[in-house]
Amino acid sequence: MEQLQKFVSNKFTLTLCFGGISALTAFTILRNKKGNNSQKKGKLYFHSVFRSNRCIWLLRELNAVEDYELIDVDVWDKTSNESKSYTETVHPHTTVPALQYDDLTLLESGAICMHLAEKYHSLIPTDLGDLYNIMFYVCATLDEVQEKLFVQFFFNEKNGTEDKNEIEHATQKFNACAKYLVTRLRGKEYICGDKFSVADCVLGYNMWWASEMKEGILIQKYPELLSYLERLKSRPAFQQTWKSSKPVM
Amino acid sequence: MEQLQKFVSNKFTLTLCFGGISALTAFTILRNKKGNNSQKKGKLYFHSVFRSNRCIWLLRELNAVEDYELIDVDVWDKTSNESKSYTETVHPHTTVPALQYDDLTLLESGAICMHLAEKYHSLIPTDLGDLYNIMFYVCATLDEVQEKLFVQFFFNEKNGTEDKNEIEHATQKFNACAKYLVTRLRGKEYICGDKFSVADCVLGYNMWWASEMKEGILIQKYPELLSYLERLKSRPAFQQTWKSSKPVM
Repeated sequence: MEQLQKFVSNKFTLTLCFGGISALTAFTILRNKKGNNSQKKGKLYFHSVFRSNRCIWLLRELNAVEDYELIDVDVWDKTSNESKSYTETVHPHTTVPALQYDDLTLLESGAICMHLAEKYHSLIPTDLGDLYNIMFYVCATLDEVQEKLFVQFFFNEKNGTEDKNEIEHATQKFNACAKYLVTRLRGKEYICGDKFSVADCVLGYNMWWASEMKEGILIQKYPELLSYLERLKSRPAFQQTWKSSKPVM
Repeated sequence: MEQLQKFVSNKFTLTLCFGGISALTAFTILRNKKGNNSQKKGKLYFHSVFRSNRCIWLLRELNAVEDYELIDVDVWDKTSNESKSYTETVHPHTTVPALQYDDLTLLESGAICMHLAEKYHSLIPTDLGDLYNIMFYVCATLDEVQEKLFVQFFFNEKNGTEDKNEIEHATQKFNACAKYLVTRLRGKEYICGDKFSVADCVLGYNMWWASEMKEGILIQKYPELLSYLERLKSRPAFQQTWKSSKPVM
């Protein structure tokens, strides 16, 4: 909670901040090129605690942080020259994350995570259908629901402009997602099976997010999700990613 | 326009209808098993003109419609036994599409399309980063924006409850997407290059959707997007998918 509040104070236009989107041009993926010095470092634009943490966490799990230049962009300050330049040259929606190569820019955290796992040939389950399902489900559904609730809880409730119907409707959708995820986790350590995968970095962010909003009101009635989150939080890569506002290299 | 209006009349709880979500359990993808009679047919739950058209269009492009049982579910009638059963056994959010095998259910149109292209080893560009980018960008960003505008244009404006701020904000986001897509399409026939791919089925739906809302007010100022849509509409698989409310087998 404290971490989020720190970032929320005096900020607005929130929808742009947690947005997870994507962009790029023609490009050929360099498979297994990790550590190839002839290849310029990619740039990962992030802002701490935002959804870009999915990508930084994954990079740590892949032991590949050093392959990328991490660039902190305060996308909430839309009037700064930094933000304007970012909008013009990197991300049309001024959100983070964005992963940029010379001729390819990925703008959606789910897309970046899929790309990284595929590039490093790691943390991808053998069942791709299962993986696609979770990745899209979380990015298209849970992200949208949680963003709505975040706006209501952190901005609108504070200034008395909350939309109770929207809170109710989004909470119902969250509950449907949560119940489904509980069935998916039954008998498994991680969301795509017994091995940690890229899908856990994506979903894990949402579980953390839910646990940080309003003392975890959304997630506290789902012990299976809480214990899943605890398993994720016990991972060194998670702890390292969340322990400071600027990722520790 | 007429097609959408036909489906909109007397309906509500729209957010559930165009929702594109996903679900499943343990499963091993059957690669290259097309036409294998020992494998039970998968079930594709759809409702015509909805986002499930992405999946049906793709199945036609893959020449694989016969591998699936297509099941029409009127997900807007949430009180029917059919809808209740669908919620309990297939889709926790009562939306279409859903693709169901014995032990795997995919609930998000983007995930289903990725799975189908991967299963049939077809219509996947060599640049997966590019593909992930577009697939996630469209599903997480453009879908969300267009759904908001659809609710405003087709429901709220009619009963005088439109939210002008939301329309303005969503339109700005649509324009940022549209301008980005124009740059992505520059010099190319299709969104991931010169060959038609699964990403075109996903994005093409959004272009069609934009062209159907309010006489195409969103898209009409982007001639590059209109001509892209015309290229897609000229494809027999597109025409076959859209020509009737029930897909022609």
